[in-house]
Amino acid sequence: MVPNSIGQRFTLTTFGESHGEAIGGVIDGCPAGIAINQSLVESELSRRRGGQQDGSTRRKEPDNVEWLSGIYEGKTLGTPIAFLIRNADTRSEDYEALRGWMRPGHADYTYEERYGHRDHRGGGRSSGRETAARVVAGAIAKQILDTYGILIESSCDRVRCTENIGGTVCCRIMGVRPGIGDPVFDKINARLAYAMMSIPSAISFEMGIGKEATEMNGKQFADAWSEGTAAQPTQTNHCGGVQGGLSNGMPIEFAVGFHPVVTQSEMICRNAEGELKQIEIGGRHDLCHVERASAVVEAMAALTIADYII
Amino acid sequence: MVPNSIGQRFTLTTFGESHGEAIGGVIDGCPAGIAINQSLVESELSRRRGGQQDGSTRRKEPDNVEWLSGIYEGKTLGTPIAFLIRNADTRSEDYEALRGWMRPGHADYTYEERYGHRDHRGGGRSSGRETAARVVAGAIAKQILDTYGILIESSCDRVRCTENIGGTVCCRIMGVRPGIGDPVFDKINARLAYAMMSIPSAISFEMGIGKEATEMNGKQFADAWSEGTAAQPTQTNHCGGVQGGLSNGMPIEFAVGFHPVVTQSEMICRNAEGELKQIEIGGRHDLCHVERASAVVEAMAALTIADYII
Amino acid sequence: MVPNSIGQRFTLTTFGESHGEAIGGVIDGCPAGIAINQSLVESELSRRRGGQQDGSTRRKEPDNVEWLSGIYEGKTLGTPIAFLIRNADTRSEDYEALRGWMRPGHADYTYEERYGHRDHRGGGRSSGRETAARVVAGAIAKQILDTYGILIESSCDRVRCTENIGGTVCCRIMGVRPGIGDPVFDKINARLAYAMMSIPSAISFEMGIGKEATEMNGKQFADAWSEGTAAQPTQTNHCGGVQGGLSNGMPIEFAVGFHPVVTQSEMICRNAEGELKQIEIGGRHDLCHVERASAVVEAMAALTIADYII
Amino acid sequence: MVPNSIGQRFTLTTFGESHGEAIGGVIDGCPAGIAINQSLVESELSRRRGGQQDGSTRRKEPDNVEWLSGIYEGKTLGTPIAFLIRNADTRSEDYEALRGWMRPGHADYTYEERYGHRDHRGGGRSSGRETAARVVAGAIAKQILDTYGILIESSCDRVRCTENIGGTVCCRIMGVRPGIGDPVFDKINARLAYAMMSIPSAISFEMGIGKEATEMNGKQFADAWSEGTAAQPTQTNHCGGVQGGLSNGMPIEFAVGFHPVVTQSEMICRNAEGELKQIEIGGRHDLCHVERASAVVEAMAALTIADYII
Repeated sequence: MVPNSIGQRFTLTTFGESHGEAIGGVIDGCPAGIAINQSLVESELSRRRGGQQDGSTRRKEPDNVEWLSGIYEGKTLGTPIAFLIRNADTRSEDYEALRGWMRPGHADYTYEERYGHRDHRGGGRSSGRETAARVVAGAIAKQILDTYGILIESSCDRVRCTENIGGTVCCRIMGVRPGIGDPVFDKINARLAYAMMSIPSAISFEMGIGKEATEMNGKQFADAWSEGTAAQPTQTNHCGGVQGGLSNGMPIEFAVGFHPVVTQSEMICRNAEGELKQIEIGGRHDLCHVERASAVVEAMAALTIADYII
Repeated sequence: MVPNSIGQRFTLTTFGESHGEAIGGVIDGCPAGIAINQSLVESELSRRRGGQQDGSTRRKEPDNVEWLSGIYEGKTLGTPIAFLIRNADTRSEDYEALRGWMRPGHADYTYEERYGHRDHRGGGRSSGRETAARVVAGAIAKQILDTYGILIESSCDRVRCTENIGGTVCCRIMGVRPGIGDPVFDKINARLAYAMMSIPSAISFEMGIGKEATEMNGKQFADAWSEGTAAQPTQTNHCGGVQGGLSNGMPIEFAVGFHPVVTQSEMICRNAEGELKQIEIGGRHDLCHVERASAVVEAMAALTIADYII
Repeated sequence: MVPNSIGQRFTLTTFGESHGEAIGGVIDGCPAGIAINQSLVESELSRRRGGQQDGSTRRKEPDNVEWLSGIYEGKTLGTPIAFLIRNADTRSEDYEALRGWMRPGHADYTYEERYGHRDHRGGGRSSGRETAARVVAGAIAKQILDTYGILIESSCDRVRCTENIGGTVCCRIMGVRPGIGDPVFDKINARLAYAMMSIPSAISFEMGIGKEATEMNGKQFADAWSEGTAAQPTQTNHCGGVQGGLSNGMPIEFAVGFHPVVTQSEMICRNAEGELKQIEIGGRHDLCHVERASAVVEAMAALTIADYII
Repeated sequence: MVPNSIGQRFTLTTFGESHGEAIGGVIDGCPAGIAINQSLVESELSRRRGGQQDGSTRRKEPDNVEWLSGIYEGKTLGTPIAFLIRNADTRSEDYEALRGWMRPGHADYTYEERYGHRDHRGGGRSSGRETAARVVAGAIAKQILDTYGILIESSCDRVRCTENIGGTVCCRIMGVRPGIGDPVFDKINARLAYAMMSIPSAISFEMGIGKEATEMNGKQFADAWSEGTAAQPTQTNHCGGVQGGLSNGMPIEFAVGFHPVVTQSEMICRNAEGELKQIEIGGRHDLCHVERASAVVEAMAALTIADYII
């Protein structure tokens, strides 16, 4: 079990705590000779960082990516691509009041149980900050998939951030030829579910029309064949482009639900002795993260599909 | 990528086509010295086979498990446990009319694209028949988990099988101590999502209260701490017992949605040239599979948790 | 860690104790549509079984391979190929005197320490019997490699079996195109060393000219380029066809040393209390196993190379 | 296949080209709460760098380790430990004459065949420089093993460096309790062979008395039991402390042969068209690397054993 890696041929290993020196990652399995456009990486990072709307995170990290290896004269070498982003603006003092206290709805308690030794500043590895490394790697993966004619896009609801509620990101992967995937455990839908549920705050995953399908009968649900040599093999896409774990040539479609941001300005926290205490929470936190999450959803989709294709 | 294996320490590899000689599996990573009750394996298989209600599968396989290795004098040896179940009653002739034709809503077309060479009889590896091997392994995993005080149970709706519709299986894992799991990619919720979405016909996965959470605000969603030394650390369990990918000591709860059985007695099939033709479908197929799926959901849950615990 | 599996894309999982019901394996990652000649499998098994010469094993197993899945109408389906060989002639009573006693030079003691619960009859998983499953899978791998123009052959010394000593198997893999392998940990030479040292009784591994190289200077050792478009890129092959972990188009050459058979007709055994006792050893055992081992060396070479090529 | 990672529970992923920005690594699976002495890391790096004797490498890198994550207040967090070492002194201009030319005895040709796009400066990933990352991770592993009472030491012959020849490193791992390892493919000896043969210039691996065993008979080779409760279970250690792939409580002993440094000050190189040309080789290179290699051998031994123990 290599808990900080994802993928089997095109893999990403991430590292870094939210309030440590840096976060970053190592991409292994990238083919040689692919031109990398770094401004596409920056624009994905900027989507993840959000900050345009009212109520979004107040952490204003520059997110400057330092490339350490794997790229030479603008093209991939086929060797591991390592990168890091320094944690410039960590304001650890905001967290001093939390030393010894565990917030509700966070991973503070479970980390304490698992590791004993914990950095009380921010979420450590479970922080949303770690997703910046996923977005960098996803931006590389997208550029590779682009050479195969594969495009990923998403939309999200519930982004009005004063609302402070959760929401859903709908994602669509276009251009995957039929027959990609594996039929038993490593089904495309299973690997996508794994990748999406690993995103902080993800609470549900639906393939195609998702839960609606549980109320349909077989005739309603089964996607009827298109006639002749139509561009799209089926007339509808209830199954979300995957049958028996393999792509069928239709767009691969799925939705990821996110629960709301749980951090409040004041929270009733708990210590190791089971005592409760209301604590004012400093640090930065979002009102709404669904729109930002869409950049992470696309990155994880790109990493997942690249792992099958390469 | 080892597409027919699941797990990293406690692993299951399955084999067998629905209309071949046999299906079966190899369990690796099982500790030595654990007493195995084979009648518990049989009763799980019997749940998966279903058949009591009207409208369920007409395939009456005996599902006799032959144990090939790994068990000696009633106890595990710590070596691989291999087993097989022969396909006694395959009635391949039922499928003769389908040679060259691909059913809608099945994996026939995607298999053709992936493998070229395909056994047109039944679903091959994507058949529900493969899940019998999962249930055998899950029954072994359950007996191991039992020695850790871990219990798995499930319930399902929409089982009235004349309805011929989909449904949802709700599963609950009790007795997992806090701090089990991994914080980044190998989160318990991510691994459960992967395992569940690999079950044939699974279409959605929800953790805890699932999609409802997307409409809550942070204060509503965050599970407040219990006071003092209460048996359960939180007052509610909206997150489903997992925070930051790690167990928090509450029951681990999730729901899996299944789409309806797509096989109809007559279906408009397609051949390689894109021609369509209505074909009468022989063979056996279910009207409803949700209740049977609950045995598979529990098996996959047991395999997933055993992989963390052992 | 999946200790009973080898390979990452083309994998073999083996199962079975020497005195249990059966041994066998599951091959995953085999491409679809490859014609399998079962008599080639039989002839490899026959080489492994030996028995022509005086002094070789007295176990006369038929080694009938039962194919359970993955092959349909004589060709691979792309799904897992499972097979088993029943242990027809185990004569467990030969081992009764050994219950509670551990032979020197065997894995009896280390198994006891690792597993507690042990089958005292024969070597369990560490028995040479397990290698029959490797030979079956290797014979499949050879047939796949053959379609790529890759051929594996070996020779061995010290086979006069009255001698009852060890020996060396020299192996050569021809037809691997340049650039196959990986440059850091998964070097071809490293993966071959791993595969070979996993064979029972293997005690040394040498690449190319092996230990002789430790006494050469750099000018003597470095393989000079051939001029022009010669069929072979270098004039000598001291490095054994692998540079920086990657094939260079020369034959891949290595040697595996085997220690002698340790089983004697009488051995001073030890029990859990540390008492020693001379025990007459029944069962079957070889005088010489080096020639038989050459079939296993080739099988492991085929599995290793197939894992890179496929 | 994750070619730049080693280990399955305690893993190391390395990155970096010899003439790129930096080299480094990510260690995953390290337990939380272990105190790390950074001066022990520095002293291992200093052994690897060598440079005291005449004739050793002229590259005078400071090898300053930057720790990026996984350590907080001097102790491990249980999260990935990432580190880097900048390539301060790369003198790329030394390699300009080699653009388009491939040295004999190096990985230049095989890289060209594998990747097409290659950094002609130095060895890229196959350079000995990459082993600095292994030594850092090995020094962490040694500190973890120390808490289990496990100690690793080595000695080497042929170190008089004017000789410019190869040599052998003998390594011994003390304090591994009996029963560690796995019995079939993941034998300790197999995993050690893999780890050692992945070191640049390694050409042979011998377990215990190694090749000598091929000339012994069974009675000479088998390690006889010690009587009673002697500290060491056997009277001799011909097998090198591993039986059936599992440790038997004796010191684990093995030897690794290294071929000589192949780089000469003038070499006959080849270009893509098969033309040969004598080229003066700039850059730095060693006369003798066997003593330096011993630091890498110990590091790889520590990583291998840590992967079993943790």
